Parts: sequence; structure tokens; C-alpha cells
Amino acid sequence: MTKTIGIVGGGQLGRMMAPAAKSLGFDVIVLDPTPQSPAGQIADQQVVGDFSDYQTVKKFGANLKVLTFEIESSNAKALIYLKKHGKQIHPTPHTLDLIKDKLKQKSFLRSRNLPTAEFLEIKTQTDIQKAVRQFGYPLVLKARFGAYDGRGNVVIHSAAQTLSAMKKLSGRKLYVEKYIPFVRELAIMVARDIRGNLATYPLVETMHKNNICHTVVAPAAIDSKLSAVARRIVEKTVSELRGVGVFCIELFQTPNSILINEIAPRVHNSGHYTIEACYTSQFEQHIRAITGLPLGDPSLKVPAAAMVNLLGERLAKANLSGLKKALSLNHVSVHIYGKKQTKPDRKMGHVTVVGQNQKSTLKTAQLAVSYLRI
Amino acid sequence: MTKTIGIVGGGQLGRMMAPAAKSLGFDVIVLDPTPQSPAGQIADQQVVGDFSDYQTVKKFGANLKVLTFEIESSNAKALIYLKKHGKQIHPTPHTLDLIKDKLKQKSFLRSRNLPTAEFLEIKTQTDIQKAVRQFGYPLVLKARFGAYDGRGNVVIHSAAQTLSAMKKLSGRKLYVEKYIPFVRELAIMVARDIRGNLATYPLVETMHKNNICHTVVAPAAIDSKLSAVARRIVEKTVSELRGVGVFCIELFQTPNSILINEIAPRVHNSGHYTIEACYTSQFEQHIRAITGLPLGDPSLKVPAAAMVNLLGERLAKANLSGLKKALSLNHVSVHIYGKKQTKPDRKMGHVTVVGQNQKSTLKTAQLAVSYLRI
Repeated sequence: MTKTIGIVGGGQLGRMMAPAAKSLGFDVIVLDPTPQSPAGQIADQQVVGDFSDYQTVKKFGANLKVLTFEIESSNAKALIYLKKHGKQIHPTPHTLDLIKDKLKQKSFLRSRNLPTAEFLEIKTQTDIQKAVRQFGYPLVLKARFGAYDGRGNVVIHSAAQTLSAMKKLSGRKLYVEKYIPFVRELAIMVARDIRGNLATYPLVETMHKNNICHTVVAPAAIDSKLSAVARRIVEKTVSELRGVGVFCIELFQTPNSILINEIAPRVHNSGHYTIEACYTSQFEQHIRAITGLPLGDPSLKVPAAAMVNLLGERLAKANLSGLKKALSLNHVSVHIYGKKQTKPDRKMGHVTVVGQNQKSTLKTAQLAVSYLRI
Repeated sequence: MTKTIGIVGGGQLGRMMAPAAKSLGFDVIVLDPTPQSPAGQIADQQVVGDFSDYQTVKKFGANLKVLTFEIESSNAKALIYLKKHGKQIHPTPHTLDLIKDKLKQKSFLRSRNLPTAEFLEIKTQTDIQKAVRQFGYPLVLKARFGAYDGRGNVVIHSAAQTLSAMKKLSGRKLYVEKYIPFVRELAIMVARDIRGNLATYPLVETMHKNNICHTVVAPAAIDSKLSAVARRIVEKTVSELRGVGVFCIELFQTPNSILINEIAPRVHNSGHYTIEACYTSQFEQHIRAITGLPLGDPSLKVPAAAMVNLLGERLAKANLSGLKKALSLNHVSVHIYGKKQTKPDRKMGHVTVVGQNQKSTLKTAQLAVSYLRI
């Protein structure tokens, strides 16, 4: 049996994955540039090094049999090299490579007849004019690489805004999407094992704040027909990707359809609620998938759950307060990520509340987070 | 806010306590003689040292504000010294001192009118004859100190067995208890915070194998009146103890009453099911209690749960097998303790199953454990 799992990236995702792996009997080693990273604090060992660097990742994987990553900016070339040399790497570096480039990701979805917003590659300003003719305003100009939590996206409402948008993202490879006037944002976590079996988590509603996934309510309170449509779409997506592990598919609900917004090839903020609310957490599920173990039941073991992120507000040494007040509320689980430095909008922790219905759990989770400062 | 929690002892209890503490934003440092101990693997840091040694424990606590212990053989004198010098130590070393000596524990219970088996101190063989006159056979001869998992207990059925029983426990301080012909064994975990508030977990049924707590079913399927009696007894016990933290009260159900078997001043095997089954796990609850945070809801969030221990069978390097088969069963959570060496009857891990009723969860947990070898 494989004894050690290497995780490329030492953030909060690895921090929550490590105890799940340890519980199943694995050792965990983490690669991250920050000493005592959130995951490194809990893993058996941390290698301090840059996960986007080819040589560092190659060396990190040299003595490991099973590797996974918790961040898309992991060096995909080094992972491809390691895979060629017999390492089990899930999701495959090819999937990572496909998903890292949002234009490639979109093209993949279109080629598989999976519903997504219309899009066009942008090389010059002329291409934007072409997009305007095809889709009309507003448009969303997006960086193909390294865009997350809203960084790397600019909405263009008129010709006058084109130049400033191009300037904001200058030096980056770009594409443009038709703006989707969505009713709400949704997400589903899906796990796929090495035999191709799927385990699909409940559809959840996600709410963003400054483009950062901020609040998740499970299950999403939407029409069961639409929910079934969403489920079919995400299951087809993950099957077509042929990846192994846990994936997050972010969706837009429009007035009359469901569109795929984007895919994350990993455990995800939208799935944190599964720790307390589901029979198998997304973290355990990912470990099961990548080590060839059978998938667990992804369904809810409680009627409802809500998750709200705790974001940094200042640039300073982290210093948690308000915990006593937050924990005085019923059914509140607090997850602090152990980041030494806090920054405005940095994800420093989250709160999950489980309970009888979405409305009350959301209210309690929001109240609990309102008491916390870090 | 207190930042670091010191845990004296690095076994599986500390291993499950560490992630709960990390999640609430604390750092964890563990004292254990075995390098890479089960808890040390997950804690921020492990000090390698003997927790039963006065100087080692004193030095370990020197720079900490909050300490707890996960094993009764922790050096109580050193903890008393540290407490005198301003450290917050929960449960108090005085409680530990009281509970470590089972004769003192029994005397405490009797002095508080708490129901327990009749008992007598044994200094010479003559004292046993006195006990026979008072209680009749069978008797249970017990070591006052260091007895756990059935080690240190001998049942005496007749005068002929007295000498061999005394020999088995020779060199140890002894007492004798009237043998209790119990219907079943029960247990309740109770948490007490620094203000004296209690959080009482559900009454569970425990089953032993070779005197080792082996199987736990929650909630115990017993008459609600008796269950209320049990609850009153354990709440009175923990209030009288005036300890802070999580306590396990092991009980005997006799044909017409509930008796206290013994008290453990810490998280306990009988409470492992709380990780998956309760709103607040015993581990998080203990951390909340000892750091002055409010207690969480101890009630079940699922209808039923069963826990079965995974015991070692041979003396060798640990090597887990059967995980794939065990995880193919529904709602199975596997907890491996990361002990490098396996031994006959050594606690190497456990399995918890949550579900709709006690019977089905127990059956699944037993089946899952039957697949595992370590």
C-alpha cells in the first residue's frame, strides 16, 4: 500500500486534506515556499520550496509514489515529467494544464457540447470589436492564466472602457466572454475514482463578495428539474475530463438554463461545508480517489448547512478575536487556517453551521463570522 | 488569546485532539517518549521525553500557558508544580491525582453518595478474608494505580484463588471490589467548562473484549427512565469533581440500578463516535473547555452510530491491509492512529459508522473492522 502522499501547495486546502489522509493511514508531505505553511503545520513534513518552479517540484516528487496538488499554479511541466517516470499524479497534469488555461478550458467544454458562455480569444483590440459584434455589451475580459478570486477579470460595458480594460490586464494572454446575467451562482463538487465511478455532492448556492467565493448554502434551494440538469452537466464534464480526484464545477443559473462558469481540478472552497455536513468530506473523498480507494457517500447527513469565509481586513500579523462569541452560537464549527499574516480579502478561515434549514444556518454562520476578527 | 496548547502524552487521543485545536486557531505541542508519536505527527511540534518524569514535564510546561494531558500516567506532581506557578492545567492535577488512585476515586464517590460497587482497601491477605465476609464471592482484586484496559484486575471466585490473585498483582497497592453482575456496560462523556456549565453527551453502550473497550453503540438502547438516572449520576459526579474538560464516566447497568464503574479525566475511547455523530466532537469540546471557550452542543446529529476498535494481532511493524474492502461499505469512517509498531490487543485504530439505527451501524462497523488487518 502507498504510504506517503505528497501535496504540492501548503495552503488551507492541504491543511484540511492532511488530517483526512492521516486518518486513512497515510503520511503526508507538503511542498510550499512559506515555512510552517497552513498545511505544513499539520503534515508529517514540509519541504520549503517554490511549487511553481520546475526543478523544485521534480525533486519533491522524486521519492514519492502518489502526488496531488492543491493549487493550479503548481508547475505542470514537472508534474508531467514525474508522471512519465511512473508517479501516480491526480488529477493528471494534463488536466491541470487544460484547466489552468481558461481559454483551453472553454474550448474543451464547447468541443464536448457542454453549456458555457460564448467566448473568443483576444490578441489585439480588433478582436474585442469582433466580440462586440458577436455578443454585444457587456463583455468580460479575462486573463487566460493565473486568474482566481476575481483577479484577472474586467467587465467592459462600452467601447470607451475597452482600452482601460486592456491596460489593466496588459502583458497577459487574454480572452473575452459574453457577460452572463445570472439569477444565481451554483456549484457542485464531483469526485471520480480511478475506475471512472463518480460521487456527486449536492448542488449548492454560492455567493461572492469582491469576486471571492464567500458564502455557500447547501443544498441550493432550486427547482428539482434544474437541479437534475445541473447534475447531468457536471457529471458529463468530469467524465469527459477523465480526471481522478475531486473537482468543483462552478455554474451560472440563468433565467432559463444552467451554464458552466469554470472548473477547478481540486477540492474547493465551495466544498468546505462537506466536513460537517456530508457522510464523506471532500478532503477524504479526494484522498480516497487518488489512492485507488472506493469513493464514499457524498450525500448530506444533516438537512442543511451554510459556510461563510473569514477574510482578512488589514495587513498585519494575524490575531484572532471574537472566538468566544462566535462559538456561543449553536452548531458553529470554526476553521482557522493558521496563516501567520493577515491581508485584506485573504482567506483566513471559515465557519460552517449545520442545521434544519438553509435560512437559519446561513443566518447563524453570518452572525458567527461577524463576531470574528483576524 | 492563548496561542499554544501543550498536550502531555502523544497517543491517539492527542492525535485526534490536535486537528480540533488547530481548527480553532491554536498551536499544539506534544510531549511523548516515542519520536513521531501518533499525536506528534500532526501537532506543530513534539518534545521527545518521558511524560511520567517530574523534571521532563516541568520543563515541558515552563513556557506554556495552557496544558492538558491525554494519559493518566502523566506526572501529576510536576503538573501540580506548574499549576502553582500560574499555568492553566485542565483537568486540575488534583483531579488527576484523585482519579489515578482507584481507591481514592472510590472513596470520593462514596463520600458524595454516588452509587458505586462496595470496596475495601487490601494490605494483607487477611483483608481479603474480611472482604469475603462483607461481600461474598466473586470479588475483583484491583491495582490502585496504573490499571487500564483490564490490566491490573483479577476476579477471585473462591478462597483457593486468593493467593494466585495476590501473586499476579504482587508489588502493587491493592483494593478489592464486590463483583457486579451487570446487565450491560454503559458510558457517558460529560464536558464541564471553567464556569461550571455542563455539556452531557448521549448515553452509549460499551462492549469489552479481553477487558478492552472495543465496541460502542450510540445512543444506548435502554429505558428512558434509567437513561435519565444515568445522566443525573454522571452530571453530579463531574460537578462534584469540579474538573474542567471532558470526562468519561463508565457505568454498570445492574438489574435494578446504575453504578459508576470508573471515571476517566479525559477524552475517551467511548467518545470517539462523536467525531462523526455529534455536533461537537469530544476533542473539540475538550479544547473549548480548557481554553475558556463556550461548550458546543453534544447531541447527535444523526440517528445512530457505532464504533469498533481495530486491535493489533501480532508483534511487528504495522502494515495496514483491507482498507479498500472496509471503505466499500457505506458510511464507514476509518481512523488509523499511525503507530509504527503493532502488538496483540494494541489499539491501532477504529472505525465509526453513522446511520439510521444502532443495529445496522453496528453490523457495518463490525464487518468493516473484520476486513482490516494491521
